[in-house]
Amino acid sequence: MNILIVGVGLIGGSFTLSLKKEKSLRFGGFDKNQAAMLKAEELGIIDEVFDSIDDAINWSDVIILAIPVKGIKMILPTILDQLNPNQLIVDFGSTKKSICDAVTGHRNRSQFIAAHPIAGTEHSGPEAALSGLFKGKNLILCDTEKSDAELLRSFEDLAVKAGFYLTKMSASEHDRHLAYISHLSHVTSYVLSQTVLDKEKNGEVILDLAGSGFESTVRLAKSSPSMWSTIFIENKEMVLKGIEAYKEELGKLENMIKSESESDIFDYLEEGRRIRKILK
Amino acid sequence: MNILIVGVGLIGGSFTLSLKKEKSLRFGGFDKNQAAMLKAEELGIIDEVFDSIDDAINWSDVIILAIPVKGIKMILPTILDQLNPNQLIVDFGSTKKSICDAVTGHRNRSQFIAAHPIAGTEHSGPEAALSGLFKGKNLILCDTEKSDAELLRSFEDLAVKAGFYLTKMSASEHDRHLAYISHLSHVTSYVLSQTVLDKEKNGEVILDLAGSGFESTVRLAKSSPSMWSTIFIENKEMVLKGIEAYKEELGKLENMIKSESESDIFDYLEEGRRIRKILK
Repeated sequence: MNILIVGVGLIGGSFTLSLKKEKSLRFGGFDKNQAAMLKAEELGIIDEVFDSIDDAINWSDVIILAIPVKGIKMILPTILDQLNPNQLIVDFGSTKKSICDAVTGHRNRSQFIAAHPIAGTEHSGPEAALSGLFKGKNLILCDTEKSDAELLRSFEDLAVKAGFYLTKMSASEHDRHLAYISHLSHVTSYVLSQTVLDKEKNGEVILDLAGSGFESTVRLAKSSPSMWSTIFIENKEMVLKGIEAYKEELGKLENMIKSESESDIFDYLEEGRRIRKILK
Repeated sequence: MNILIVGVGLIGGSFTLSLKKEKSLRFGGFDKNQAAMLKAEELGIIDEVFDSIDDAINWSDVIILAIPVKGIKMILPTILDQLNPNQLIVDFGSTKKSICDAVTGHRNRSQFIAAHPIAGTEHSGPEAALSGLFKGKNLILCDTEKSDAELLRSFEDLAVKAGFYLTKMSASEHDRHLAYISHLSHVTSYVLSQTVLDKEKNGEVILDLAGSGFESTVRLAKSSPSMWSTIFIENKEMVLKGIEAYKEELGKLENMIKSESESDIFDYLEEGRRIRKILK
């Protein structure tokens, strides 16, 4: 089986590395960034490098789009147009609704699967790819009733072999949950980083005074700006709702601090601390 | 040398464990929480347990207050009253100005050192103490010109043996820097946790959808509510300034998302991402 990775970075690269033990699979790569693609080949992430997207598609049984959402929306309909009936295309984009909307009613819609791997690090590029990145991690499959049952089953097999467990939900549900659980974390990290950098011009001071707590809280601000600027816009409506809810909560705590109501603050923090029962 | 730890939790306990190799030192413990103190003795964190604070003080050469700021402010002046000229008292509180203010002009002020170890985990209690917690970490000493030079030097020796490197600044400077670099991270983590818990009533969904990013960003929301409710109030003025600055930054990003100005968002995230050059 020939698997084409479009976008051989952290996610695409980790997907092939996770499946390297499967001897029946061959991995091809296509990437606008020529250097990244050659690096991926050098690192053994892909077996074949393609210069033309058309050649790449002709060669493949399964096409994985592991690029930012905007790029996916741009090329997905065109690639779907030219598939033969046995080919499958899967996207690994971080938002799902606008992508699914872009191919609603497409005559080859059933050959497409919308997926989102809940895994990653703050690093990017093929050098950041890890063979164990998806072990025990969740792969969300969206609107699966619109995908061909057989193609879906064969892709599910592949995903499980890569280490994932699978969850299914609608694209809208996905985007709503992710806005709160993932996108909002990125917003707050970037904003915290910006606030501190603005007030503390001296990096030395930050380094000296930052406990591991600060480091952990701003870790996501190291993420890829091109990826996240797209996500914030693609999931604009839900992200803005998340920011609104966050601002309201921040205002509550702010008022408690203003009025020095220690027991209210204590209760508020105790409430927030329930998260430790959920995250191990 | 007899070292008394008042409050044998994460920080107090880690301090004695870091110095266990120094055979000339003996460690005593006093804690309102009898169970924690006995646990600390059982874990080998302290050699002697005291039931009376007066007995404990009479026994000691160096007294370390490793309790929340409010408690420190309450007992520090009284303990200073009863010290003989060779005894030293040090506090490890997380804010410094209100503590220093509480002993301004005290006749034994020179026998007090205001210190803040920039280290910790989200856990608390003697079970959480670690012998390596302070290795390569910063101990901030505040307003040191008000402490006796000889007592200061001998405490600095001890701190370096425990693994710390030392930084000196005024108590006000300390509180201003920490508001941005540490206290604000705690505010944003607790608020994020609260926002998500409020919108996602189903813990299972959070667990399934939370990548390591969310986990990292809300880690500090697992911290001790009693410690942090005190800190937020003790450093109220600076913490509120921090929240104000943060809200302003959040508003900027929110507006960029509203108007879908992708290149502005990109630039904003790229700016925030500079933090990666500072934190390794």
